Amino acid sequence: MNDTFLKACRGEQTDYTPIWMMRQAGRYLPEYQKVRSNVTFLELCKKPELCVEVTLQPIDLLGLDAAILFSDILILMEAMGAPLEFHDGKGPIFAETIKCQADLDKLIVPNPDETIGFVMETIRLLRNELKVPLIGFAGAPFTCATYLIEGGSSKVFWETKKMMFTNPTLFHNLMAKITDATILYLDAQARAGAQALQLFDSWAGILAPVDFETFALPYVQKIFSALQKYDIPLIYFANNGATLLDLSVTSGADVIGLDWRINIRDAIKKVGKKAVQGNIDPFALLLPKDELRARIGRLLNAAKDAHGHIFNLGHGIHQFTPPDQAKIAVDAVHELSSK
Amino acid sequence: MNDTFLKACRGEQTDYTPIWMMRQAGRYLPEYQKVRSNVTFLELCKKPELCVEVTLQPIDLLGLDAAILFSDILILMEAMGAPLEFHDGKGPIFAETIKCQADLDKLIVPNPDETIGFVMETIRLLRNELKVPLIGFAGAPFTCATYLIEGGSSKVFWETKKMMFTNPTLFHNLMAKITDATILYLDAQARAGAQALQLFDSWAGILAPVDFETFALPYVQKIFSALQKYDIPLIYFANNGATLLDLSVTSGADVIGLDWRINIRDAIKKVGKKAVQGNIDPFALLLPKDELRARIGRLLNAAKDAHGHIFNLGHGIHQFTPPDQAKIAVDAVHELSSK
Repeated sequence: MNDTFLKACRGEQTDYTPIWMMRQAGRYLPEYQKVRSNVTFLELCKKPELCVEVTLQPIDLLGLDAAILFSDILILMEAMGAPLEFHDGKGPIFAETIKCQADLDKLIVPNPDETIGFVMETIRLLRNELKVPLIGFAGAPFTCATYLIEGGSSKVFWETKKMMFTNPTLFHNLMAKITDATILYLDAQARAGAQALQLFDSWAGILAPVDFETFALPYVQKIFSALQKYDIPLIYFANNGATLLDLSVTSGADVIGLDWRINIRDAIKKVGKKAVQGNIDPFALLLPKDELRARIGRLLNAAKDAHGHIFNLGHGIHQFTPPDQAKIAVDAVHELSSK
Repeated sequence: MNDTFLKACRGEQTDYTPIWMMRQAGRYLPEYQKVRSNVTFLELCKKPELCVEVTLQPIDLLGLDAAILFSDILILMEAMGAPLEFHDGKGPIFAETIKCQADLDKLIVPNPDETIGFVMETIRLLRNELKVPLIGFAGAPFTCATYLIEGGSSKVFWETKKMMFTNPTLFHNLMAKITDATILYLDAQARAGAQALQLFDSWAGILAPVDFETFALPYVQKIFSALQKYDIPLIYFANNGATLLDLSVTSGADVIGLDWRINIRDAIKKVGKKAVQGNIDPFALLLPKDELRARIGRLLNAAKDAHGHIFNLGHGIHQFTPPDQAKIAVDAVHELSSK
């Protein structure tokens, strides 16, 4: 069992810097594309055997130090009663959006073992196969709320902010319900065997710090507080969250994820006695080999004062990234960080 | 002549905090919509009399302290030879993108007085009408380059970064050519009577600090250096640029624009002896009157140690903003900041 990832999360000494990549099980791999060619994305998410297969693919191919459950943050929203569709090239779509309390009242707080047991089944199956730790995850409430309010992805999040600023009661009610569902969901993942849990706050970065503190952070804190009893690393990743770091360190997470926009040295100063995860620009994987290795070396050096560093990309690996380039990055992290 | 804006740009004492709003001449105003109903967006940009009309509309309606030339950052790209189209709801489109040196060689560095003299004519006409200072502007080279490379707006800027990381020579050549054209363009705007000049770097925020320093900042510095001779305030606005502030202060700008993601107090510490412009979330204009005024009061207080503060939104005013709410904000800034 390679527990380098878990040690780094806890700020313990490791022989080398562990690495995994957000969206490491995904479209850039021909092996994933092959599986995906026979099923829709949502079908794939709901078939444990296939989820296991694609979760495992990058571990051996690239030599990564952690696996992350293959799933989608919106699976939970569907289980809450929001009808979810994925259209290729368009991303997720919720045909019915939350506009008033009556809309919200239609959503339920599901028992995850009953409604989305396939996720927990995937976790159990993976634990039998894996020689590296398994990360479970959910979307952070703010990010999930934006999808339910906007009906999908958004450029400017007008409807979300309109609700925040003109109907804060409804907004907080929605956040509270998603939070309750997320706690049950991550609790079930931990019981099924997840060895770390990450909250993805993909859209927190659209918020001014004052609004993040009011409308998003309290719900993240509540979730992490409820999960402390499992004594497994909790990771919070607020994409585009450089200006939210002072607040994110109060979230209750053990590890703070960083996107690529911030110099990791500056981030470590703000994060203090917590581990950091990140933060190379995913597109920098395109650099010629020598330059990619040099950039990774500089990043490792900049992170040497971290209280634990898990190497990762600052965002998900892009679908057009050559897998060979990802392999160069993994090898470089392992070699250049070896004591 | 109300010169409060110019004084604040120079860090001089003012009787109150001046305010203008990015995209203040625009779609949220019924008066603008009326003008626009008879012409396309590009036609409007090229008719000085209409540009004057829409530039003036918000000044009187809202009581703003500065006017900004109505135009578009991509007008210069079209003058360089890139065929520009605007489609309602889709944003700008360049059918021919820059993929190789031969594509770049087709672009010219135009004489702005000959090719886009309508901009300078608009400036001359506006100076006859205005009782507040007139801001001229251009797109920063990096932002303009993304449009030429991607062929329009982009979510992830894959093509731009691919060129940066795999063909840096071509990328730098493109940036150099846009820079040369921008210097001539802003020089012409200054000669025509622009009393301040702003560079909009709408997409700089997609860059890691190290890449901003290598691929974008040197060209901003070159432009501002060439404009120093006019002794008018130079403003640099890097959207989503909180983690670039340490570098942006070296751009040669007198005023640093801030989006809404950063606490203005933190920004002022980094900016030091330069004025700041910003930074309320444009969507916070939706707040109920009392809350909007309270938020503005807190922001003014947080900015009281600035070496000059021009109140602005952190991004352009959104098209669905009620003009009455914008007026509440302008009045609040004037009242709450009055000595």
